[in-house]
Amino acid sequence: MNNSYTTSGNSGPKVRSDCEVSLGLSDRGGIVIDLKSKVEALYGESIKKQCTEILNYFGIRDAFLRIDDSGALSFVIAARLESAIKKAADTELDYLPDLLEENKYSTSSGRFRFSRLYVPGNTPGMMINAGLHSADGIILDLEDSVGPEKKDEARILVRNALRQVNFNGAERMARINQGERGMKDLEVIVPQYVNLILIPKCEDAATVRNIENRISEIKANAGLNNPVYLMPIIETALGVEMSFEIARSAASVVAIAVGLEDLTADMGVPRTVEGKETFYARTRIVNAAKASGIQPIDSVFSDVGDMEALRQSVLSSKALGFEGMGCIHPRQIPVIRQGFAPGPEEIEKSKKIVLAFENAHSKGLGVVALGSKMIDPPVVARAQKIIDLAVRLGLLSGGWMNEIPAEMK
Amino acid sequence: MNNSYTTSGNSGPKVRSDCEVSLGLSDRGGIVIDLKSKVEALYGESIKKQCTEILNYFGIRDAFLRIDDSGALSFVIAARLESAIKKAADTELDYLPDLLEENKYSTSSGRFRFSRLYVPGNTPGMMINAGLHSADGIILDLEDSVGPEKKDEARILVRNALRQVNFNGAERMARINQGERGMKDLEVIVPQYVNLILIPKCEDAATVRNIENRISEIKANAGLNNPVYLMPIIETALGVEMSFEIARSAASVVAIAVGLEDLTADMGVPRTVEGKETFYARTRIVNAAKASGIQPIDSVFSDVGDMEALRQSVLSSKALGFEGMGCIHPRQIPVIRQGFAPGPEEIEKSKKIVLAFENAHSKGLGVVALGSKMIDPPVVARAQKIIDLAVRLGLLSGGWMNEIPAEMK
Amino acid sequence: MNNSYTTSGNSGPKVRSDCEVSLGLSDRGGIVIDLKSKVEALYGESIKKQCTEILNYFGIRDAFLRIDDSGALSFVIAARLESAIKKAADTELDYLPDLLEENKYSTSSGRFRFSRLYVPGNTPGMMINAGLHSADGIILDLEDSVGPEKKDEARILVRNALRQVNFNGAERMARINQGERGMKDLEVIVPQYVNLILIPKCEDAATVRNIENRISEIKANAGLNNPVYLMPIIETALGVEMSFEIARSAASVVAIAVGLEDLTADMGVPRTVEGKETFYARTRIVNAAKASGIQPIDSVFSDVGDMEALRQSVLSSKALGFEGMGCIHPRQIPVIRQGFAPGPEEIEKSKKIVLAFENAHSKGLGVVALGSKMIDPPVVARAQKIIDLAVRLGLLSGGWMNEIPAEMK
Repeated sequence: MNNSYTTSGNSGPKVRSDCEVSLGLSDRGGIVIDLKSKVEALYGESIKKQCTEILNYFGIRDAFLRIDDSGALSFVIAARLESAIKKAADTELDYLPDLLEENKYSTSSGRFRFSRLYVPGNTPGMMINAGLHSADGIILDLEDSVGPEKKDEARILVRNALRQVNFNGAERMARINQGERGMKDLEVIVPQYVNLILIPKCEDAATVRNIENRISEIKANAGLNNPVYLMPIIETALGVEMSFEIARSAASVVAIAVGLEDLTADMGVPRTVEGKETFYARTRIVNAAKASGIQPIDSVFSDVGDMEALRQSVLSSKALGFEGMGCIHPRQIPVIRQGFAPGPEEIEKSKKIVLAFENAHSKGLGVVALGSKMIDPPVVARAQKIIDLAVRLGLLSGGWMNEIPAEMK
Repeated sequence: MNNSYTTSGNSGPKVRSDCEVSLGLSDRGGIVIDLKSKVEALYGESIKKQCTEILNYFGIRDAFLRIDDSGALSFVIAARLESAIKKAADTELDYLPDLLEENKYSTSSGRFRFSRLYVPGNTPGMMINAGLHSADGIILDLEDSVGPEKKDEARILVRNALRQVNFNGAERMARINQGERGMKDLEVIVPQYVNLILIPKCEDAATVRNIENRISEIKANAGLNNPVYLMPIIETALGVEMSFEIARSAASVVAIAVGLEDLTADMGVPRTVEGKETFYARTRIVNAAKASGIQPIDSVFSDVGDMEALRQSVLSSKALGFEGMGCIHPRQIPVIRQGFAPGPEEIEKSKKIVLAFENAHSKGLGVVALGSKMIDPPVVARAQKIIDLAVRLGLLSGGWMNEIPAEMK
Repeated sequence: MNNSYTTSGNSGPKVRSDCEVSLGLSDRGGIVIDLKSKVEALYGESIKKQCTEILNYFGIRDAFLRIDDSGALSFVIAARLESAIKKAADTELDYLPDLLEENKYSTSSGRFRFSRLYVPGNTPGMMINAGLHSADGIILDLEDSVGPEKKDEARILVRNALRQVNFNGAERMARINQGERGMKDLEVIVPQYVNLILIPKCEDAATVRNIENRISEIKANAGLNNPVYLMPIIETALGVEMSFEIARSAASVVAIAVGLEDLTADMGVPRTVEGKETFYARTRIVNAAKASGIQPIDSVFSDVGDMEALRQSVLSSKALGFEGMGCIHPRQIPVIRQGFAPGPEEIEKSKKIVLAFENAHSKGLGVVALGSKMIDPPVVARAQKIIDLAVRLGLLSGGWMNEIPAEMK
């Protein structure tokens, strides 16, 4: 019998779409709910009913529950209450809201990952609209954006968000914690059809392989066979030193990212706009990724107010070979997507390669050549991907091939 | 019995010093030759005689042969006809023109390789005068400059060129193809006293060692013991990652080159004049080469019209430690040679080192010192080489040592 | 019986605090001393007495000794005479002046090593005042600053200096020679409570481990247990290639330094002020050191006359992550120390970050923000380290946080 209160969630003047719940278990008196909510008139009864249902699910018949609601959706209330329950009582149970059928999509290893939006893992207000900004990926972050005392409740909230929030086709990513806590994150996150796991402060190949193996076990136990890709993040000098080993450590690694705030902190140098202090690290990481056939992804750009500086940063990044960048604010997404999108020269070159391939194919030749130069299959594949994207972005007509004069083919 | 025609070689308004031959085998009627040539009046009979001889050598008694000649030399005609025959009929035979005695020279591992002229392997017009431009090396290229359907005939043409064309002391080099085709190239090229083999798109040490072993076998079978050096070319991010392993992979590796067109394509970035996108790769390759005691060689400079830009590029290249550069046009050679030649400071420093060595030697000292600093034997050797070159280039008098006042020694 | 003279030490118009001794052994006539000294009137008898004592110590009863003294201290005279004796006669004996009690201090692995002053190992005039300039470390150099024929006498002089010269708390360092000679240096130097050994032209981990093992043996034999740290110097392209292996080769390695004069010579390039030619090497070495948790130390700056250029060089060096630099002249020390210490901007920024963290922490927030910018935990940690150093250097009051008005927090 525990007479003290456990709490979970957030309240306060700046909090949106969240709630704070306080739970006191008792041994008599049934379930008493004290709800404070702006939407009480409309949803009060339904919230109370949901909470009673959840308490019953966990076998709790007598309790005092206070809810300070700031417009939390049902999956948020469920997560907050489950967290409070798990702080108060040992239980093996999980209360899983429905997994939306439209959330069960897979992604492909080679898809473009120009922009990925970081969403703090304990802030439901930022999750709900995350899918509206056309980011290539959305990261539900359990690591640096979540304070130590909030890690457990964030994990449950992210689980529920992956089941209930529609991210409109963005790659569904989660950044787990380091070490043992990260392994617990996997247990909870992997069964939710997550597409990609980010591994923070990665410093060796063994960590990546352990995570890959654990994911395989979890998927096997859950009867799932959707791909779950990995993106290790290099954030220390040791990670830089090991970047090639990390990049080719496991088949499910599709990208490596660099985290420059942490890296410069580890190096003990200020991070500059020119970035001379990390030029070695960034170019080494790009090369390690390209040598391993995976995508190198650049750090986030911290100053969310300066769009022109972001634009310049994206161009420099792309010129070095990076294929994407993290975003910490939705307004960064269009600048980043536009910056990494293929330019006119790249599209022209890709058209030539695709035409050469079509030519060779129609003549039954086994080898594709541009001029005297043979073109390897991965180069053809990449050119085709660029063409597809250019068409999707409206940079090229879908019927471009038919518009080319016959004598040019 | 094959009634169709096989062809080999090139014809057309822009073709010089080449011919196109079409061969139809028959079972009666003897050898019929249809020759179209500007030099028919002078050389017609001799060309026909040569062709008949070659056909007989391969056991062909009945055939129709059409030759569209643009002034091909005898070794070219022989190569074109042999190629056509080999397309038409299985044969183990090779028709080898004489190997000029003056082509049987060897080179040394440490010789300067400032400039090396690329000559496409299926373009005889560019081979004939290649030796007139004082390039340090001439590369007969079987790889990227030869289309897939021309690979076999280029191999035979290059073989004949190595036997019959005098390159005036330039290092005689060949760039082979990748993989199995490259191994076939070796069979044909190595016995021709070639000095150096370029290995394209090299990505591991094992490939280099396989090639070294195969060359040893071929030389042993042919009873040859001239040195055949290797220059792997790094053209992919994976090659960059492996550059140190490649540089020290085998005793016959004397240099590693970087190919920036292919490397930037592999990285998916545009190649810029400033070259920030390949700075990591280039400096890593330089370091890997120097750490292995071999020469780092820079990429070709693509803009054959801009001599001033080339000059700047050579100076930057040398400043980073590169010791040579590829050329795709003869006019680039003097600019490159002059740029990589030792400057006045380098010559002055080398003079001091050579004098210190002579001093120590005359005093019977085992250790050479300049001031308080000991000078290692390889540094002395390099200084001597620079002095020798400076004398050869007329930058220093051959009797410079005698011209120094005794009190300065 | 050896009738020829052996000599040791230096004389001449520019020599200070040194002496040149010439020793001729004899079999009769006792000890005859011919002393030429400006201080003969004052110290003549005492010098002669010391020399007779030392000769007796080595069992020499008959000898002719000429001393050309330029104001040598007692430990210098002793070293010079011992060297002359050891050239003249085989002996297992060493003549050790007292080891000052105040020289028996230890240093810590993580102490700041902003500046380290090189002192040539055979120039006593530069040793005596070396401790007055507040260098973090003083290097008694047995390697490049000592000519081959002076190596043995320098070793004895440095030994005596380590016993008799007070370096005022500077880290007491010695740079040994390469190879077998370096191992002999260790025998003589390690028992003198030396704090750190610099390993020149280091190219592999095995060399470092051999030296560490040898030092352990020497310390065990001498009954010593003070820490002796190692600082390998990377001075060749091969060393650069091995820098990570070297940095983590042994537990006593606390720093790796780069030697750019030798490195550029090894690479065959001129050393420039901008340093593009060594950018790869320097940044790779910094990363290797940081990845191994040790300090990366920059090369000496050769132009002792240009303080402004030195200042710029220090700032660039620090910006890349170097944590110290060699000095070849005492006047460079304050510029280097000041340059590597945290600057006002760094301190101000660190204060803001630490305050923002304290603020967030007191409010229970998981995310620390400064303006629109999120601040990650490692950045907070670095800021705290800078604040601690600033307080230690007296650049900031220990109670700074209480001195800030409440409304600014």
